[in-house]
Amino acid sequence: MFAFGYMSAMKQYLYFEDFEAGQRYDLGSIAVSEDAIIEFASEFDPQPFHLDPKAGSDSMLGGLAASGWHTACLGMKLLYDGLIGHSSCQGSPGINTLSWKRPVMPGDTLTGTAEILATRPLQSRDEMGLVTLLVSLANQDKALVATYENPVMFLKRKGGA
Amino acid sequence: MFAFGYMSAMKQYLYFEDFEAGQRYDLGSIAVSEDAIIEFASEFDPQPFHLDPKAGSDSMLGGLAASGWHTACLGMKLLYDGLIGHSSCQGSPGINTLSWKRPVMPGDTLTGTAEILATRPLQSRDEMGLVTLLVSLANQDKALVATYENPVMFLKRKGGA
Repeated sequence: MFAFGYMSAMKQYLYFEDFEAGQRYDLGSIAVSEDAIIEFASEFDPQPFHLDPKAGSDSMLGGLAASGWHTACLGMKLLYDGLIGHSSCQGSPGINTLSWKRPVMPGDTLTGTAEILATRPLQSRDEMGLVTLLVSLANQDKALVATYENPVMFLKRKGGA
Repeated sequence: MFAFGYMSAMKQYLYFEDFEAGQRYDLGSIAVSEDAIIEFASEFDPQPFHLDPKAGSDSMLGGLAASGWHTACLGMKLLYDGLIGHSSCQGSPGINTLSWKRPVMPGDTLTGTAEILATRPLQSRDEMGLVTLLVSLANQDKALVATYENPVMFLKRKGGA
């Protein structure tokens, strides 16, 4: 059940067969600084309320707030650190229903969880299966800031389950 | 019909009332370098096939490929430059059905379009309406690499349409 090598010796290396609907993975936490919010927004989403505290305060966001894409990318980083990085992940065809529920502000710390919604073998690729994850990000007040569903392809164990 | 000030003098400033289902906005183009792919992946999605050309070649992606989140963020940048940046945009509640169709490789140039799928006034906020955009990104071979639906809130004109 445990593979050794590039993953942490303390973490089980995960194949398709290890996932079951209903499982929940803790993905750890990440802090969000004003500098990171502004740097990301400057490159990808330079709307005033993502760049300037005054413009943020004047907007419905109520203050300088991270681009929703930034929040989603922080979810990817947590998903990598907490699951994908010690797995046989082969990529993903996309995202279903990414929902931005609350602004992410400087000084927030986001904590991620991934719940397994469904698993199925891939008909087109016998060596892989598809696992649909529900990634949820909450802030330090335990309020949800974003959720998304992510179907991810994982290799099966060699020689079958 | 034209507002003057922070947007380009050559671009019409867009309010909710300016959008109609079936309209299509060209969003321009952006080039993708190997350095940018690796820098983004290092921060947000450090899977081997997003960091290392050899690992990319060994994967189903067929070569070093941008994180799908990177591609999506480049779509946001094109959407900002081509539409959002000269509009009354107030933010977005999320994304529906983000689809990664083909790998994005170093040297690719992505061209974006936004098609208006639907518009409706917001019941909860009389001063705004919701416009659902279909953002499509194609590479230099005119092959689609990603699409997503993005409902976006825009202010109405003051004093009504």
